[in-house]
Amino acid sequence: MRLAIDVMGGDQGPRAIIEGSAKAVIERPDIELTLFGPRQRIIAELSRLPQPLAAAASRLVACDVSDAVPPSASAAWALRRGHETSMARMLRYVAEGGAHAGLSAGNTAALVALSRRELGMISGFSRPAISTAIPSRGGRRCYLLDLGANVDSPASRLVDFAVLGAAMAHCIDGIDRPRVALLNVGAEATKGSVTVRETDHLLRECASSLPFVYLGYAEGGDIFQGEIDVMVCDGFVGNVTLKASEGLTRMLVERVQWAFESRLCGRLASVLAKPVLKRLKQELDPVRYNGASLLGLKRIVVKSHGSAGADGFYYAIQRALQEVERDLPTQLASRWS
Amino acid sequence: MRLAIDVMGGDQGPRAIIEGSAKAVIERPDIELTLFGPRQRIIAELSRLPQPLAAAASRLVACDVSDAVPPSASAAWALRRGHETSMARMLRYVAEGGAHAGLSAGNTAALVALSRRELGMISGFSRPAISTAIPSRGGRRCYLLDLGANVDSPASRLVDFAVLGAAMAHCIDGIDRPRVALLNVGAEATKGSVTVRETDHLLRECASSLPFVYLGYAEGGDIFQGEIDVMVCDGFVGNVTLKASEGLTRMLVERVQWAFESRLCGRLASVLAKPVLKRLKQELDPVRYNGASLLGLKRIVVKSHGSAGADGFYYAIQRALQEVERDLPTQLASRWS
Repeated sequence: MRLAIDVMGGDQGPRAIIEGSAKAVIERPDIELTLFGPRQRIIAELSRLPQPLAAAASRLVACDVSDAVPPSASAAWALRRGHETSMARMLRYVAEGGAHAGLSAGNTAALVALSRRELGMISGFSRPAISTAIPSRGGRRCYLLDLGANVDSPASRLVDFAVLGAAMAHCIDGIDRPRVALLNVGAEATKGSVTVRETDHLLRECASSLPFVYLGYAEGGDIFQGEIDVMVCDGFVGNVTLKASEGLTRMLVERVQWAFESRLCGRLASVLAKPVLKRLKQELDPVRYNGASLLGLKRIVVKSHGSAGADGFYYAIQRALQEVERDLPTQLASRWS
Repeated sequence: MRLAIDVMGGDQGPRAIIEGSAKAVIERPDIELTLFGPRQRIIAELSRLPQPLAAAASRLVACDVSDAVPPSASAAWALRRGHETSMARMLRYVAEGGAHAGLSAGNTAALVALSRRELGMISGFSRPAISTAIPSRGGRRCYLLDLGANVDSPASRLVDFAVLGAAMAHCIDGIDRPRVALLNVGAEATKGSVTVRETDHLLRECASSLPFVYLGYAEGGDIFQGEIDVMVCDGFVGNVTLKASEGLTRMLVERVQWAFESRLCGRLASVLAKPVLKRLKQELDPVRYNGASLLGLKRIVVKSHGSAGADGFYYAIQRALQEVERDLPTQLASRWS
């Protein structure tokens, strides 16, 4: 399997991305990565890789691109002037069949706009949606979308999100008929914004022909209950909810740690509680859930958090590999569009 | 201090509300509560109060009202046909000076609509906003608003939320110049919905004359960072964010408990970890943060979660008492409108 990586755009620069890439390559002998960015910087970072990762250098091919999308660029800027950036070049490489999937930690608006232009949409979908799986009760997960590619989405686009999310739950998690809900401020029919009520109406109209179970409205807390596979919302709401959840998880994990450290006396705490806390911290770490999928495109594109370190980028690569293995776009085009 | 309580409308019926009321009265000899609902039910619940609370019965006065707002009623229904419900009667009692504040666990849309009609708005504000304080890092808190009274809010109303939230942080928490931010999907000026960008423009235009510090855009995770006193958003976004945070907190606390119980062997766990976990669970329990304020009204109204038990309702009463002590509406009218 071949992946194309845009090394520019992460908050920590190319180093974290290249280290995460090396880690993935070492672990899986069947993958090859092409790195898009300034060759000198890539080579410098490759030569600096710590020992167990240094062996990966030969399977990380550099493709020299000097331009990059600035973090604050708009979608319009990317479309007008971003043609020769590392992000656009990486996407064209995927479009031309050089790689099975592309990854970037760069500007989301630019990635959405350039992906749509360079890769094209699967027939029936007008714009990519961004989704990620949120861990919920009982070891299950809930795909939340959109996460910010589309703010002020009309009802017809929210219906697209329902289909795209259901396809994701079906292909990746093997759920036969995913349970899809529409995020709202209450379960009653009179509640919600005009757009959400219109979406509910559209989904109910075609409920019998949908390849998923439409559950109607659900509330914010239901994301974590383990009874919904796909939660549909506008990109503004999804983005805020995801980031609030990540921030809250970090705060609560810190607080749990503090509670144990301050209330169990020194030696006992270090012997008993620390190993449990350490493992718990790893399990809940948002880094493990890094990587959001751009859905509806003809090829696979995964967006990494801009703030991701090497481990976070490594997890985003895992997500891309999973989608390649399940051949998500082909399944989407044949069964779901 | 006198409070008026609508005993109808909570998911658990009048019992939890009356028990929570009794608990508040026992704790504070200086308060008196008037309970609005069917007299026979109120009397039956009062006679069933468990022992330490039974002494409260004499300071809980029943006001007989047989009608109640149905859980699924719309604001329009409440305005047209809810005139003689326990909620409307409770609010009129507050309007006529019978009590310093009113509380209900009933239908939010009805409470907002009826409060506005029965109590009236402070000059300069067109509709009530709902807000609650969310615990953030370092023992601080962040007022989030609106929480669902206003979906599809225009920019001018989001500006009102900023003023109302800042007044709350000033009056209740004693913060001289509260730090106010606008919730968005990113910090860059090009990001966000049309309404949010327009709100940012309006707030920047009048920044020098505002009685608070306007920080610009912030993201979902910033709610918990402890560096923002007031986070402004549309009611749809605020409602989803609050409910998601509550659901996530419950799930994480369960998971922490499970991690310790399954990984520390029996006796050791019960001796060492359980007391810490129990206290932590209490500290993080959303029940403790129950009670959201309806802001912008001429009198104090607090909304309890519909699902609140006796303890939850007790905390909502504490919030109302705090607002009565600080005389929030008078301060709002004189300094902030």
